[in-house]
Amino acid sequence: MSGVARKIRFQDARVEMAHGAGGKASRRLIDGLFAPILFGPSWEPLGDAARVDVGGARLALTTDSFVVHPLRFPGGSIGELAVNGTVNDLAVSGARAVAMVAGYVLEAGLPTEILEAEIRAMAGAAARAGVTIAGGDTKVVEHGKADGMYITTSAVGRVIPDLEISPARVRVGDQVILSGPIGDHGITILLARGELDFEAELRSDTRSVLPLVEALARAAGGAVHWMRDPTRGGVATALNELSLDCGLAIAAEEERIPVRDAVRGACELLGLDPLHIANEGQLIAVVARDSAEAAVAALRETPGGEYASIFGEVIAHPAGAVVVKSAYGGSRIVDMLVGDPLPRIC
Amino acid sequence: MSGVARKIRFQDARVEMAHGAGGKASRRLIDGLFAPILFGPSWEPLGDAARVDVGGARLALTTDSFVVHPLRFPGGSIGELAVNGTVNDLAVSGARAVAMVAGYVLEAGLPTEILEAEIRAMAGAAARAGVTIAGGDTKVVEHGKADGMYITTSAVGRVIPDLEISPARVRVGDQVILSGPIGDHGITILLARGELDFEAELRSDTRSVLPLVEALARAAGGAVHWMRDPTRGGVATALNELSLDCGLAIAAEEERIPVRDAVRGACELLGLDPLHIANEGQLIAVVARDSAEAAVAALRETPGGEYASIFGEVIAHPAGAVVVKSAYGGSRIVDMLVGDPLPRIC
Repeated sequence: MSGVARKIRFQDARVEMAHGAGGKASRRLIDGLFAPILFGPSWEPLGDAARVDVGGARLALTTDSFVVHPLRFPGGSIGELAVNGTVNDLAVSGARAVAMVAGYVLEAGLPTEILEAEIRAMAGAAARAGVTIAGGDTKVVEHGKADGMYITTSAVGRVIPDLEISPARVRVGDQVILSGPIGDHGITILLARGELDFEAELRSDTRSVLPLVEALARAAGGAVHWMRDPTRGGVATALNELSLDCGLAIAAEEERIPVRDAVRGACELLGLDPLHIANEGQLIAVVARDSAEAAVAALRETPGGEYASIFGEVIAHPAGAVVVKSAYGGSRIVDMLVGDPLPRIC
Repeated sequence: MSGVARKIRFQDARVEMAHGAGGKASRRLIDGLFAPILFGPSWEPLGDAARVDVGGARLALTTDSFVVHPLRFPGGSIGELAVNGTVNDLAVSGARAVAMVAGYVLEAGLPTEILEAEIRAMAGAAARAGVTIAGGDTKVVEHGKADGMYITTSAVGRVIPDLEISPARVRVGDQVILSGPIGDHGITILLARGELDFEAELRSDTRSVLPLVEALARAAGGAVHWMRDPTRGGVATALNELSLDCGLAIAAEEERIPVRDAVRGACELLGLDPLHIANEGQLIAVVARDSAEAAVAALRETPGGEYASIFGEVIAHPAGAVVVKSAYGGSRIVDMLVGDPLPRIC
């Protein structure tokens, strides 16, 4: 422990749902409480995985807990999400997951068939993502002390040689690329809860984004400066974090961001912005201008990236902000997610 | 996924508390359901960590979820336990933890001061254990959907060169060593719940056992054949797992197993066997006969190992069983923990 203590700035008296939503409150909790205590004075804003050197190997290490409710939903389930989410945290950090471990907190009374289905979902997702599940741990808590099950997956990955991902590499003029339509996951979960009066033909986009990352690495290599999978808090939160971390601004064009009609419709009814809705199989990449077209072309040839497009650009001002230009010509500042309108979507 | 499917032998209809107790039911769940699906046909019984080769480096990877109730208890808390438990899983697998990540499932309404205390406990335990906490993830679930907080820690470690730990290396005549008094952790947790009519001056033994492992490595090196930290299910369960995994038997002498009076008294009142009570800072080592005295001497010079002793021997028959000779000359077969008399002790 260093002698120089960083200040605890987190002042909220209690943990609230918003602290887990991935938006502004989450960042306050992490930057204001966890980071000063756990990571010491030299800590810098974390990406989705930590770089560690072990025995001469350059590795990436990440962990992610999953508490999605309900456990199963169109297009996926907690088990698939738990594998893909952690594979993706490594992928957007420029690393390929090699081995994964899983910690289960199970609720007493959970039917075995539900547990078995999730173990099978994990095995299938791991096989598709090319990662080995190397071990795990199981705890059981009394009925009512967990919501069926929570799964925490952690993985170690090998750094992909040609990629160097850091907000410090982002420059004015860099192009901002999105791999496909946004909001499918969050709205699917919301509808799967059956609390709303409408239905839609929508499926979660949960998948490994590693093939997309590898396509970017081949097509653009070192010209890829930053990546993120816009999960909790959505595209808006990911871009706001980037703008804060690199000290620049992001200008996005709303009409170039693909959103399915069902997602747009649900958002209008609920007063939500699709830019704040979670995705589990999409990728944002910031790529040097000269390589951006090649990057998009490579994504479009990769399953899951068919609708990839350039939707924004890094600009200098207003530093730390995300400016979205609407189809009608107006502009608005889009903040991180505030509050938690869609709790427990992953 | 291999084409050869292993059989699902787990027949229980629901998950019960006993499946999380670390004893017989836990092993049935892991061997009968998780392992056949997740680990494929070539799977062998897991130690406390998985070996993985990443980029030419020999690594160990492990994960452990913590659901201890109450969160704080004499001698420690969930945060310390979460760091030490994972450091120890690597240590007894012959690896030194290098980097750790932590996943938090927090309950809405958790007072910040309780969370802060646990983050500080983790930072302190990590500093003492010499491991870096490199990142984490935080989720929040509704009040009532977790019991304050659950923490899952995962760590990657570097294999300690002189150690090769495997049940396959265990031989008849090997000596079985225990690092110190047993049962302190489990009985401390039980008393901390305040549900019993008696009190005792007892503290959890939670600590990093890495210094003990390093002392063994220096003193006995390759003569150390197997190690385990006897947590859930206690010494009896750890020895039963060893006997099953190596196909030999363990003969233990009860009077050579140190048990504090308070632990013995609580066990007598509750009808429990101290051999089934969890420990969080003890180590069992199986060492070749010629090196056993040197190993014990090295442990005794190490903090936490002052009461180390040889308490048993590996014998050929009855294969797969643990035989305990009492002080009065009788012998009994001691099984793994059955049921879960002390739920959520870690």
